[in-house]
Amino acid sequence: MSTLDSEIKKVKSEVDRLILDELLPSSSPIPEVELLYKMMRDYPSRPAKGFRPFLCVTVCRAAGGSREDSLLTAACIELFQHWILIHDDIEDESELRRGQPTLHLKYSRALALNAGDALHAKMWGVLLSNERRLGQEKTLNVLGEFARMVGYTTEGQHMELGWVREKRWDLGESDYFDMCTRKTSWYTVASPCRLGAMVAGSGPGTLESLKEFGIKLGVGFQIQDDSLNLIGDQGKYGKAKSDDILEGKRTLILLHALGKAEAAERAKATSIMDKERGHKTGEDVAYVLGLIDKYRSIEYSQRRARDLMEEALAVLNDISWGGEKEAASLLESFSRFAVERQW
Amino acid sequence: MSTLDSEIKKVKSEVDRLILDELLPSSSPIPEVELLYKMMRDYPSRPAKGFRPFLCVTVCRAAGGSREDSLLTAACIELFQHWILIHDDIEDESELRRGQPTLHLKYSRALALNAGDALHAKMWGVLLSNERRLGQEKTLNVLGEFARMVGYTTEGQHMELGWVREKRWDLGESDYFDMCTRKTSWYTVASPCRLGAMVAGSGPGTLESLKEFGIKLGVGFQIQDDSLNLIGDQGKYGKAKSDDILEGKRTLILLHALGKAEAAERAKATSIMDKERGHKTGEDVAYVLGLIDKYRSIEYSQRRARDLMEEALAVLNDISWGGEKEAASLLESFSRFAVERQW
Repeated sequence: MSTLDSEIKKVKSEVDRLILDELLPSSSPIPEVELLYKMMRDYPSRPAKGFRPFLCVTVCRAAGGSREDSLLTAACIELFQHWILIHDDIEDESELRRGQPTLHLKYSRALALNAGDALHAKMWGVLLSNERRLGQEKTLNVLGEFARMVGYTTEGQHMELGWVREKRWDLGESDYFDMCTRKTSWYTVASPCRLGAMVAGSGPGTLESLKEFGIKLGVGFQIQDDSLNLIGDQGKYGKAKSDDILEGKRTLILLHALGKAEAAERAKATSIMDKERGHKTGEDVAYVLGLIDKYRSIEYSQRRARDLMEEALAVLNDISWGGEKEAASLLESFSRFAVERQW
Repeated sequence: MSTLDSEIKKVKSEVDRLILDELLPSSSPIPEVELLYKMMRDYPSRPAKGFRPFLCVTVCRAAGGSREDSLLTAACIELFQHWILIHDDIEDESELRRGQPTLHLKYSRALALNAGDALHAKMWGVLLSNERRLGQEKTLNVLGEFARMVGYTTEGQHMELGWVREKRWDLGESDYFDMCTRKTSWYTVASPCRLGAMVAGSGPGTLESLKEFGIKLGVGFQIQDDSLNLIGDQGKYGKAKSDDILEGKRTLILLHALGKAEAAERAKATSIMDKERGHKTGEDVAYVLGLIDKYRSIEYSQRRARDLMEEALAVLNDISWGGEKEAASLLESFSRFAVERQW
C-alpha cells in the first residue's frame, strides 16, 4: 500500500470511529426515535473512500495545524457527504449506494428525506462543538465555510437536475464546468482543503489559492468519477454501472460525444437520454456507450482532467506551507491520484 | 384589530421584508441558478401567520433586549419554517400549502427537495451574520438552539411518519404528547421564545422556564391546529380541509375518538386511516369525521389544549422579565390566542 493509500485509510478510520462512537446517537428512551438514529447511522456505516476528510486533515498538517484539531471538522465533511447523498439518491431515484440499496428504498422516501435533514442538523450541532478546541473565531470561520459549501453544492445539483428536467442539450464544456464547480469542486476539494487551512489558522492568500486549486482539481476528480461510472469495476466503485446514462446526466464525456456525433446520431442519443429512467432499455444504454466509444470521449475527457490537475498542481506548489513537509507532498500525490484512480 | 394582531402583523412584515429584500438572493449570472433562487423565494412570498418570529421578537423585548437585535434571528425562524415545510410537503405528499400548490407539485420533487436544502443552508449562513450585531458568544448560543430545534423537529416528524408507515394504533395521549413536543413545541414556541431570550442575554433559569412554557403551549397550539384542519375555514387556514385524515395523522382528536369507539367502529376507522391517501373516498373521510363528532373528540381535545395553556401561563407568569411590560403582556395574550384562534 502506498503512503497515500495508507494515510487516506488512517484518516477515514479515525473519522468513522469518531462519527459512529461519539457523534451520532444510538439509543433513545423513545423506541420510534431509535429507528431514526439507526437510519442516520446507515450511510456512515457503509464503506466509503474518505478522500474529503483526508484532504482536510492533510492540509491542516501541511499548514502547521495538528491532526487532532482538524478531526472533528473532517468528520463533519463526512456527515455532509452522508446526508446529501441520502437526498441525492432520492432526487436521482438511485437504487444502489456503496453496494447496497439506497436508504429510501430500504425504508421509505419520506423517512429517508427526514433522516437526511436530521443528519444535516446534526452536522451543524457537531460543528458548534469545535468551539471547545478551536475557540470562537475559528469555529465561526469553519461554520461560514460549511454554509458556503452547502450553498454551492445545492446550486450545482439544481443545475444538473434542471438540465435533465428541461431536456436541455444546448450545453458545452463551459456549462459543464460551471455546474461541476458548484456540484463537486467545492465540497470535494476546495472546502475540505480550506477548512483544514482555517483550522490551522492560514491567512486569506492561502485560502484563495486553495479555492483555485480545489475548483480545478474538483472538476478533474468528477470527470474521473464519470469515467469510472462507465468503465469502472462496480465492486470497487459502489454505484450501479452506467447509472449516469440512466439518470440522464450531462457528463463531459457525453457532451463531447454529442458534439462530435453526426446529426442523426445526436438526435437518437438525446432522445434516448431524455427517456425516463425506467424506460431506457439495455439496447438504449449500449447505443449511447457505442457513440462514446466511437468518438473516444472518455479518452478526451480524461486528457482534460489531467490538464486541470496540472493547472491545480501549479497553484498548489506556489503555496508556502510552513507545516509538515510530508503532508504537503501527500497533497501532490493525491492530486495525481484524483484523476488517475480506478476507485 | 387587537394589539396582539397588529404586533404579529408588524413583526411578520418586518421579517418578510428582511428575507425577501436582503437575505435571499434573486439574481445570478447563471440563468439556471436563478430558477433555484426563485424556488427559494416561493414559500417566503406566500402569506403566512408569523406567530414564531413574533414570539422571538416579543420575548426579546420582554427580557430587556431590543426589537432590532432579534429581527435577524426571527427571520431565520421563518426560513426554518419555509424549508422544513417544503420537505414536509414532499414527505406527506401534500397538495396545497398556504392556498397554493405545494412546491414539489409546482416544479418537481427532486428540484423542490434540493431547494429545501438550499434554503436550509441559507438559514445557517444568515445566522452567522448575527455576529456583527450580537458578537461571537450570543451568535454561537443562537446557533446551538437552532441545532437543537431542527434535531427535535426531525425526531417528531420521524415519529409521526413512522406511525403511519407501520400502521401503529396502540397509541395513547402520552405518545401524542411525546411526538407533538418534538414535532411542534420546540420550533413553534420553545425555541422562538428561548432565542429571543438568548439575544436579550437572559440566564439559564429563564431559558429553562421558557422550555417548559413552550412545550406545554406548543402542544396546545398543535391541538388547535388539528381542530382547525377539521372544522376551520379553509380560506383562512391555507391547508386542504381534512388533509390530516387523508395523510393518516394520529391527532389527539382521532386518538380520543378511537379510544371511545366500539370495537367495530374502531376497526373500520383504522382500516380507513391505513389506506393510502389516494384510496380514501369522500365517504371514508365522512365516516371518520362522524366518529369524531359522535364522541365529541374535538371538544375534548380543545379542553386539553386550554388546560395546557393554563399550565403554560403559570410558568410564564413566574418569570421575572426586566424588559418592556407591554411585551410581557403580549405573551400572555398570545398564549390564550394560541389555543382559541380560528386561523
